[in-house]
Formats: sequence, C-alpha cells, structure tokens
Amino acid sequence: MAALQNILFIMCDLLRWVYLSCSGLPHLMTPNLDALAARGVRFDKAFVQSPICGPSRMSFYTGRYVISHGSSWNGFPLKVGEMTLGDHLRPLGVDTVLIGKTHMAADREGMKRYGIEEGTLIGARLAECGFDAFERDDGLHPDTGYAPPPRYNAYLRSKGYDDANPWNTRANGVEPEGDETGLGWFLKYSNRPARIAEEDSETPYLTRRFMDFIESRTDDTPWLCHLSYIKPHWPYIVPAPYHDMYGPETWVPPNRSEAERADPHPIYAAFMAQRASQSFAKDAVRNAVMPAYMGLIKQIDDQMGVLFRFLEERGLMDTTMIVFTSDHGDYLGDHWLGEKELFHDASVRVPLIVYDPRAEADATRGTVSDALVEAIDLAPTFVEAFGGAALPHRLEGRSLGPLLRGESGPWRTHAISEYDYSVTPVRQMLGTGQDTSTMIMAFDGRWKYIHCEGFPPMLFDLETDPDELTDLGRAPGHEAVRASMAEAIFEWSRRQRQRTTVSPERIDAAGSRPTHESGILIGFWDEDELRDAGGEI
Amino acid sequence: MAALQNILFIMCDLLRWVYLSCSGLPHLMTPNLDALAARGVRFDKAFVQSPICGPSRMSFYTGRYVISHGSSWNGFPLKVGEMTLGDHLRPLGVDTVLIGKTHMAADREGMKRYGIEEGTLIGARLAECGFDAFERDDGLHPDTGYAPPPRYNAYLRSKGYDDANPWNTRANGVEPEGDETGLGWFLKYSNRPARIAEEDSETPYLTRRFMDFIESRTDDTPWLCHLSYIKPHWPYIVPAPYHDMYGPETWVPPNRSEAERADPHPIYAAFMAQRASQSFAKDAVRNAVMPAYMGLIKQIDDQMGVLFRFLEERGLMDTTMIVFTSDHGDYLGDHWLGEKELFHDASVRVPLIVYDPRAEADATRGTVSDALVEAIDLAPTFVEAFGGAALPHRLEGRSLGPLLRGESGPWRTHAISEYDYSVTPVRQMLGTGQDTSTMIMAFDGRWKYIHCEGFPPMLFDLETDPDELTDLGRAPGHEAVRASMAEAIFEWSRRQRQRTTVSPERIDAAGSRPTHESGILIGFWDEDELRDAGGEI
Repeated sequence: MAALQNILFIMCDLLRWVYLSCSGLPHLMTPNLDALAARGVRFDKAFVQSPICGPSRMSFYTGRYVISHGSSWNGFPLKVGEMTLGDHLRPLGVDTVLIGKTHMAADREGMKRYGIEEGTLIGARLAECGFDAFERDDGLHPDTGYAPPPRYNAYLRSKGYDDANPWNTRANGVEPEGDETGLGWFLKYSNRPARIAEEDSETPYLTRRFMDFIESRTDDTPWLCHLSYIKPHWPYIVPAPYHDMYGPETWVPPNRSEAERADPHPIYAAFMAQRASQSFAKDAVRNAVMPAYMGLIKQIDDQMGVLFRFLEERGLMDTTMIVFTSDHGDYLGDHWLGEKELFHDASVRVPLIVYDPRAEADATRGTVSDALVEAIDLAPTFVEAFGGAALPHRLEGRSLGPLLRGESGPWRTHAISEYDYSVTPVRQMLGTGQDTSTMIMAFDGRWKYIHCEGFPPMLFDLETDPDELTDLGRAPGHEAVRASMAEAIFEWSRRQRQRTTVSPERIDAAGSRPTHESGILIGFWDEDELRDAGGEI
Repeated sequence: MAALQNILFIMCDLLRWVYLSCSGLPHLMTPNLDALAARGVRFDKAFVQSPICGPSRMSFYTGRYVISHGSSWNGFPLKVGEMTLGDHLRPLGVDTVLIGKTHMAADREGMKRYGIEEGTLIGARLAECGFDAFERDDGLHPDTGYAPPPRYNAYLRSKGYDDANPWNTRANGVEPEGDETGLGWFLKYSNRPARIAEEDSETPYLTRRFMDFIESRTDDTPWLCHLSYIKPHWPYIVPAPYHDMYGPETWVPPNRSEAERADPHPIYAAFMAQRASQSFAKDAVRNAVMPAYMGLIKQIDDQMGVLFRFLEERGLMDTTMIVFTSDHGDYLGDHWLGEKELFHDASVRVPLIVYDPRAEADATRGTVSDALVEAIDLAPTFVEAFGGAALPHRLEGRSLGPLLRGESGPWRTHAISEYDYSVTPVRQMLGTGQDTSTMIMAFDGRWKYIHCEGFPPMLFDLETDPDELTDLGRAPGHEAVRASMAEAIFEWSRRQRQRTTVSPERIDAAGSRPTHESGILIGFWDEDELRDAGGEI
C-alpha cells in the first residue's frame, strides 16, 4: 500500500459517540462529518482505553493500554521511557505536530534523572507527549492559575476583549445580570450565549490555527497534525447563534430507569452520588445544558466544513488521511450520571471516522464497521500508513489498515477499558485502597463485563438490553458468562507489555541461532558432541 | 530504626538454595556462611522472580517483577525509565557500586532517543544498571568475543599466565592431554583441576577486588557494594585443592523418578529434551560435575571467611548489613533436567541470608524465617535500611525490615516467579508464539502452581510431595486448588505496576482536595452551590 503524505488526527473532548447524525442522532445535523464518513469508514464500536481525558489520551498517543503506560489519571505524568507518536513517526520522516489539547503532564523528575533539559528539543518533545507543539492549549483556564495563560487569551485581547482572563469571562462566560458572575462553569448559564463573537470562540480559532500551520509549511515534509479541539467539553457555553439552535423537541430523552437506583452496585451508587451526577439527574440542569452541548457540536461540524474545504482547495484532500474521534463521551444525565468515568456506552464509546484517500481504501468508502476498535489502534494505523514496520512489542493496538482495505481476517474478540478512581471522591466514599480503586471493562460485542476490584462485577447484555439498564453482575444464571469474561480480562492482564526493547525480528533471530555459536557451550560432554552439533572447536 | 552505614550485597550465580550446610546439605561444609546465618536471619523460602540470570537480576536491581521491567531474557535491554538501586540509593547519599556480574544489557536505542551519551556519568550508570562499576565482569569470556575482554585477563597475564585468553584456557580450562582442548565448557573435564593457582581463580580475585574497593575509599560516605560472584556458574571448573574434595559419598542423589517421564507436561517434556537435561540425566555427567560444583561452593565459603575477617578487622562488621544470595539454582540432573528455567525448588529457590548489625535486629539473630520472600524484597529492604521512604509505587517488593526486627504482621500469601521461553529451543519444539511462550508460578507455602500459557497448568503439593515428583496440574480432584491458585495469579497480573510517577502521598493529597479548589468547577448549578461547598467566588 502506498505510504501517505499526511495525517490530520482530529480529536474532540467529551463528544459522545451518538451525537452525530451519521451515528443516528435524529436532530443534530452534522452534514460535514457525515460527508467525511461517506468518504471513509465509520467505526461504530470504538472504545477509549479509559473514560477520562488524560489516561485516554495517553493511550491514543502511546498506542498502549493504561496498565502499560501507567498514566492512569489526569495529571499523572507519562513516564520518561514511554514512546509516543512522535518517537514512532519522526524516524519515518514525519513531522508530528500538536494544535490544541493533550492533557500531558511531563515527568519532570524522570527528565531530571536523565539530565534532559526542557529547553532542548528532546526535552520539549518529552514534555509535550512527543509532539512539536505548534500550539498547546488544554482548554481549562480558570483564574486560579490551573494552567499557563493560553496564547488564545492574547488573541482575544488583540481582538478587543480586554478582560484580565477573557477565556474565562468571554469565551466561557455569559453577560452577567445583577450579581451574577456569568461564569460558564455554572450550569445555569449554559443556555445563554458566550460573550464573544462566534468567529473568536475556541473552535474556529483552533481551526484557523491549523490553517496557519499549513501556511507555515515551507517544504513538503510529511506531517501528522493532531488537531485537538477543546469542545464540547465544559464549560458548556457556546456563542450565538449556536446557543439556541436546539430546543427540547430535538433532545434525546435521558436513558435511565428507576430500577437502576433500586439496588445499585456500590461503585455505581458512589458515582451517582457525585455532584455532577446529582446535577444532571435534575431536569433543570439537563434542560440548560442540552442546547449548549448540541450547539457546540454543531459548531464543530461547521468548522469541519471550513476545514475540509480548505484542504480541498489546497489539494490536500487526496494526500491526507483524516481521522475524527473523541477522548470519551458524556453521560448528560443518562443512568443518573454526569461527566464520564464509568463504562456505559455514553461514556466509553466514541465516534471514530477514518478517511483514507488511497485507492486501496476505495472498497470500504461509506461503510460502517462493527469491529471492536480501541483507541490504541490509531497509533499502529498511523505507523503503517506512513510505511513503517509493525511494532507489536511497543504498540498494543492493531492497525486499522486491513479494515480500511476491506480485508477479512481475525480481529480482537474483546475491547478493554480501564479506570483508576484512586484520586476521586468515590474512593473516599468507598474506603478502597490506592491500588485497588480500579475497574477493568471487557466487551465482546454482546456482553459488557466490568471487573471491579474488591467488589462484585457489573454485567450488561447489550443484545437484550442495549440501553444498559440492567446490571446482571450479581444476577443468578449468568455465572458462565461472568467466568468467561473474567478469563478474557485475565488473558489480557498477563500479556507481555514491557518487553519493548526487543523486536519480534530479534526474538526470532535469537531463537533460531544455536547457543553454541555464541561460544557459550551448554551441556556438551566433550568435543565430539560439539562437532556433532555443527559447532567448531 | 537507625540508618545503616553500608550494605554488602553478595550474589552467587547458579547456587542452589540447599547447597549450604546451614540449609541442610549433609556433606558440604560452609562454616563461614553458616556463621553469617547464625548472626542474622536465614530466609528458607526465598524465590527469584525468574529462574534465569538476566531477568532474575533485573528484578533484584529494580525491585520489580519481570512483567513490570520487561527484561524477560538474558540480553533483553532494561529500558531507559526503569529505576534501579542506584536511582533509589544515591539520593540518600549512598554510593552504589558494582564488583562482578550483572548481566545488564543497556538500552542503547532508548539512550540515543533521549540524547544520553554513554560517556557521561548518567549514561555510564544507565548502561551499568544503575551501578558505578568498580569492576564489571559477567564471567563468560569464550574466544568468540561474546563479551569484552575482562580486566581479570590482564590480571592473569600479569601473574604470568601468557595465554591469549587465560580466562578460557587457565581459569576455566584443565591441562589437556593428547588432542583434548581442555576447555572447561566440556563437562568431561569438570573433575580435573583448573590450570591456575587457587588464589588466582575468579572467586578469590573478586574478593580481593572488594578489598581494593574498601581500600580506595577516601571518606566515610555510605555505600552499597554489589559483590557479584560468577561461580559456581559453569564452566564447572575449580582449581586444586577444591576439585577433588567431594567424592560420591558426599553427594545428594538426584531427585527424580521414572514416573516423571511417563506422561510429562508438554513444556516439561520439551525442557527434558534439551541438551543440558539430556546430559545431566546421565550418571557420567553428574559424577563429573558434582565435585566441581561442590568444590566451587566450598571455595566461595572459604572466601566468605576471608571477607568477613577483613570486615571485622576494619570495624566494618558493626556498620555493614551483609546479604548473601544467588540469582537462581541449578537442576544438576534433578527431575531429569540440567541448568535452571523451570520452577522446581532446585531452580527457583535460592539461599538468602541477611545479617543486620543493628541492635533492633538482635531478636532474630540465628533464626530461620519461613516467610515467602522474593528477590524484589531486597531493593525496598536496602532503601529502608538507609533511611529512605517507602516507594511502593516503584518497588513491588516488601522490605524485610519487619522480619529482621521480629515484628509480626501480614505478609504476602503467594510468591510469584515468571519465565519467558520465547528465544529458547523449547519454543521451537512446541511451536508457541513469541508472546505466549510464558509461564507464571505461584507458591503459597504448600501448593506450587504454574500457569502455562496455551497449555494446562502444573501443580505440586509440597506438603505431601516435597520433592515435587508428582504433577497434579491435570489430575482430577484438585480443581478447586487450581482455580484458587489461578485467581492468585490473576490478582497479581492486574496490579498497578506502571503508575510510578505518582507517589502514594500525592495520590492521597489529590484525593482529599476538593476539585473546585483548582478552579475547575464540575457540576455546580450556580454560585450558591459553590459557596455551600466552601468554594470562593
């Protein structure tokens, strides 16, 4: 297969899998993403490796499970030694560039241990998760100094938004009335417009930054650009006209039942008790947020139109693979939950569209794949697309290349996802240990089983219960399924993950060479035995 | 507990647990090691993390399981990012020094990736498994250039041994007769004396190198010295008078039964078919090797006497913890096997004596501990002994400190060991995959269970079958035990191992801090809700 020229790897944050019209949502029109899907493959069963930003992204960027890279919560530094996309693609001659969010926390202690200065090229890339940061912006800039002031604030001020922190009070704030703060953090403001012109809000800004990146190219070196949008992540605030495009008649009702609250699994009960869940269980909250959430997605889709036209005009559409996905979903009150973090489809399943311009992918254009795809599959897909050798000792995912080419063959039988709640209030409620606040999901296309350390499992039968309303984890009659799913997690958990310094080729070569050729003679009685084995004296 | 001044961490290679008189061997007198045991604690149930040199040692030096550090076979580079003893001890002000063998293979690709030059201090330590190498010598120097020429060869030449490679032809060779090569690699020569004066052989040489190290100290900086002897590792050759001290009347007969060969487990059968096993199944081979093996151990014990007197004379015995162990055992024909690599006690169980001079350890002097101890327990023991904080996110072992102080409390319930046979002829015989050529042992003090990827398990009941002659892995009536042991391995395999950049303190601190203090406000409807939660507007 011909190597590609470029890859545009687009990610949204908190974009639930179903919130595209091509995924089946009735009232949110996303014609531009639908058109991309019509030119590529829409992977309908795509799962993230952890339903929370940081760990999910570290898995996207390393091609490895969370249990392997160890960055199991937001802000847990990705250790020096974990290889990222840039480490794999730069040797193939590919510029690996970031515009937007990664949620990367640098392992500064590790860098110091190895004498790696942040001011150097190696240090800067290590600190930025392997990317060359054309612009890093994690999209959360409260006045507390949580993150460095973004370039975006300077942009806003240049446009006349003179607030001290216009990200906070303009892009993510509404016009306050009376003693209101107008801060978009508060959900009651979600259905009011941001205090900013639409073109100055974050989504169009990042789109233009991608255009700036393209304009800045001075040669035709191949690139992978990770264009990583911040939205529809909260603050749930969108500028006019998007803030009131979607009324109640367009909303999908919350997917929840009273039965779920009757005898909930202890971990599920603890998550239901969290503030975000309590909030989203209220109609008033959901009613305020839905217009903003849907409007933010609509704005993204409009920007996708802008972006795709831009690529088309520059002839890049024929040489650029485009991948569109999200780092996780959003409960929005489903299952009486807010945010993400558990393993219902609302949280762990993401949209994934892959458009591959090469002729070899013509056979699958416009199709929908039901293969169990994981976020870690993108890194090997990218390596393969740029003509690199497979790196199964380092990348735990599988290239989607065969699926894009319509090739048949075995695929994985279970999708896996993990969650570490050790730094959350849920752990405090449950009194679990630091090392035992973990869950592991396995999904085989029908059964979704969640191993819960120290608790019974959860189990859903998506064939008879596609809305995941009935937890069979403790129900009699499902012992065999539970045992079989636990065995799948056992198989997964004991895999070789860290044998990363030795390639498959080297293992085969070492295994096929008689030891005595190294001069290390084991078990030979005398010279004749060595000669008989083909050895030289 | 007072911090120690120094630690002398002595390792032998291929020294089987029982081959000390304090361990119960009737005819090998090791009075010096027995005396050390009488002043310290002998851990009678100590297991290595993998019954083969490199992986076992990488676990000793990292304090982590093989599945965690990934160096699962000899010569598989330990990846940049894995922390070793030096990384943990130097911040405590401890010089961490090597004399002898580590079997370390540097991750040169990883070092290059991060711009770490081998000529720098950081690079040199990374390449030497975290040690400052006073003298590195892995003890295998055939003429093939398998390893760099050792300093020891220069020493031998300075003593008048003018051979091109006196390690090969003198220290590990015998006087050839007729057309013999006299090379000690060939087992038929094992019962003849090495062509070298006893004082010039490897074991006394390394002892003197330790003395040189002590003499070279110019201040009283604390040190950990890893004095890592090469013997009794093959070539099984020892100089006079040690070569004929032990006749047949002193040998423990081979521990094997015809029943073992009747219906062997497929992996066991493949190991029995290996050259070293076929050799050691023959009486002639065993009879030739036993005098050398026992003589080599006797020589080590004599050198221990020299060493301990040297320490005593310099007043170091009161300020130095002494640890004596081995990287794995040696089948010597037991179970129809040679070498090591499987999980019978002959292979996976090692001698372990810990002498702690501090008064807090007085209560346990001369005692024998039956606790299930693992090789990875030494690293945390050393960190604690030098006054360092526990590092459970990085070190998977447990400090032996509480056992040395005679404290009661919970201990681990299962010892774990692993083996990856992907580069061995066994894999070729069995046709297994690169990633599925693995075994994992769990031992609970009675049952020894070996998970064999792709095959049935092995199971031994050491209560009724202490010689491990009956494999119950497929026997009816033991289903519950097998399920329980498999569950123990499952629990072990899914542990957090890579969350190494985040300390327990940081996890507790993060978990106890309300998220809203960071300025990230999740799930708040309005300003009042935030105020009610104690937040500031």
